[in-house]
Amino acid sequence: MIEGNHIGIVGGGQLGRMLTEAAKPLGFEVTVVDPTPNCPASQAGAEQIQAGLKDLQAVKDLAGVSDVITWEIEHIDVDTLRAAQESGTLVEPDPETLGTIQDKLTQKQFLSRRGIPVASFMALDKKADLHSAQTELGDIIIKTRFGGYDGRGNAVITQPSWQDIQDRFGDAPVYAEKIVPFQKELAVISARDRAGNIVTYPVVETVHRNNICHMVLAPAPIPVEHQKAAEEIAQETLRELGGAGVFAIEMFLTENDELLVNEIAPRVHNSGHHTIEANVTSQFEQHIRAVSGLPLGSTDMLRPSVMINILGERNGEVTLRGLERVLALPEVHPHLYGKAPTKIERKMGHLTVIARTVEEAKILAEKARKELSI
Amino acid sequence: MIEGNHIGIVGGGQLGRMLTEAAKPLGFEVTVVDPTPNCPASQAGAEQIQAGLKDLQAVKDLAGVSDVITWEIEHIDVDTLRAAQESGTLVEPDPETLGTIQDKLTQKQFLSRRGIPVASFMALDKKADLHSAQTELGDIIIKTRFGGYDGRGNAVITQPSWQDIQDRFGDAPVYAEKIVPFQKELAVISARDRAGNIVTYPVVETVHRNNICHMVLAPAPIPVEHQKAAEEIAQETLRELGGAGVFAIEMFLTENDELLVNEIAPRVHNSGHHTIEANVTSQFEQHIRAVSGLPLGSTDMLRPSVMINILGERNGEVTLRGLERVLALPEVHPHLYGKAPTKIERKMGHLTVIARTVEEAKILAEKARKELSI
Repeated sequence: MIEGNHIGIVGGGQLGRMLTEAAKPLGFEVTVVDPTPNCPASQAGAEQIQAGLKDLQAVKDLAGVSDVITWEIEHIDVDTLRAAQESGTLVEPDPETLGTIQDKLTQKQFLSRRGIPVASFMALDKKADLHSAQTELGDIIIKTRFGGYDGRGNAVITQPSWQDIQDRFGDAPVYAEKIVPFQKELAVISARDRAGNIVTYPVVETVHRNNICHMVLAPAPIPVEHQKAAEEIAQETLRELGGAGVFAIEMFLTENDELLVNEIAPRVHNSGHHTIEANVTSQFEQHIRAVSGLPLGSTDMLRPSVMINILGERNGEVTLRGLERVLALPEVHPHLYGKAPTKIERKMGHLTVIARTVEEAKILAEKARKELSI
Repeated sequence: MIEGNHIGIVGGGQLGRMLTEAAKPLGFEVTVVDPTPNCPASQAGAEQIQAGLKDLQAVKDLAGVSDVITWEIEHIDVDTLRAAQESGTLVEPDPETLGTIQDKLTQKQFLSRRGIPVASFMALDKKADLHSAQTELGDIIIKTRFGGYDGRGNAVITQPSWQDIQDRFGDAPVYAEKIVPFQKELAVISARDRAGNIVTYPVVETVHRNNICHMVLAPAPIPVEHQKAAEEIAQETLRELGGAGVFAIEMFLTENDELLVNEIAPRVHNSGHHTIEANVTSQFEQHIRAVSGLPLGSTDMLRPSVMINILGERNGEVTLRGLERVLALPEVHPHLYGKAPTKIERKMGHLTVIARTVEEAKILAEKARKELSI
């Protein structure tokens, strides 16, 4: 276990907030680096260093007060983390892993070389590459190698020309991926502790709208052999990645019943929010345990659940309406993040609904979500 | 529902902290009045007005920022709360109820007049009353009418003289209660919303050591007819008490299989901490729902549990030891309160253990508690 009880987190949004909520009852103190005044994590009792996520001095200051540093977002500076590590502060997971994952092309190459199934892909460094990609892969999606999230940085352009790509992405490095028709999108939350033990949570189905996570069904309503296979792939992936912490392994279940890893998030993830109520140990407590050198907790699912995101529906001041109707429904657990102002498609909160079956939970979650406006 | 989203709490100890933890995800902001710098609630994200609990100006200031005021401790000033109420701030539960409960003699008279079973008792205003009490009640326990808790303010003195009582309690008003041999101590957490609906949690057994709550077994290992009777008494009691919020009804199960109400706490209570993990809605969320005018949540028990308190074992700086061994056990949920310094018998935290049976949970809770030192 770490020497002291102070955890530093780069980023203090909703993930940092829920990490803070999990860390406090275990006796930890938390400091976050975040540019937004009164960020979500600070409202839950984290100290805040108000600075940009890539601010070298801020991360140094964070290292100065922390026994271990971790992060809630992958778009941060690996070199800064390495510097903190070299100056003697523990950083988990390994910044090396973050580096591998940040570049989606490197991530895909890394997985592919280790035999983890991914969609076919190709680098797109120059005009000539595009022709090869189209010849070899057929229909392709163009993705930026760095910094994309919630679908930003991805583009499906039918038969793109090199000019189309440059118009869309400018000089940002991109790569091409074969478009694979899928039945479902899945995700497995996994964790490794500092001793190397790996656990996985039951696989979930993620439902996206406009490329943003809309709903998570836990467990994923898929045949048990696919469930087992998905969890096995997550285990395998974690064995290859260095460092302790929670990782989310996002996958496609293709129309041909194949499982392909789409993307890895080296952090707690929207596809694991339901674990707060639905599993013995939440992904947030699990991450705190992992990075601080504590033993991992049980990932057992207690009851079926559906998580539905509360995205902003307009721009402006936050006015929450309908909470009394939501709480009149059986077993709906709201989680509001304390963000202001509300913005269209901003993640303002989520609801987790517990029921006897996933189907029942889904109906209730959709009903509850409709009652609420923010 | 209240107009705004700001809840004021008089007191910011562990109960205020867990109320804050429950309030934040529902979108509430919390301010507490507490004299201790960096009080437990403020560490979980509550704003703190640093002042004594009976500080008139502080409670006025609290009223100024709050849409509803409540409390986590009953040793506060009823008149101050009434003043806040008269100046237009909602106060829940009703300060009148707090007044009735603060004076344990009035509390007993109130219950007794309404047919709620209590041990026989008598006022002890003057020397002559002692003789009548001893004649009518037999073996008696002397209790202070105001301000006692954790056994402080109670004294069992064999055949006391008036002088003995004065030596022990000085001028503090006291009363006498018949000593009733009991098999078990029980408690029922109940709640009423602002519309008058009442819910009760399954009855628990409370185990005390040195008059301080040591352990809570949920559900109470007693025959089902006693369980039902205890919950019925709690319902009845709540019907008589005014205001919205959570109440704890502590009872004795006597050697003659009678149930007697021992004491009411007009607030969230140590006998309900297990509800965080063991029930659909925790007592803390329930209280927030009740006082803010939201509908009550389900009190259903999910799984058997045992809560064990972590009391300080020495005086001095806090050094938590053994957390890694505790978390290696199946399903132990630590809750540390962030108090400093540690003091002998100070409530520093608690553990909730979930298991298939209460017996199993108890064995595990005792094992876990032994692993931990603070």
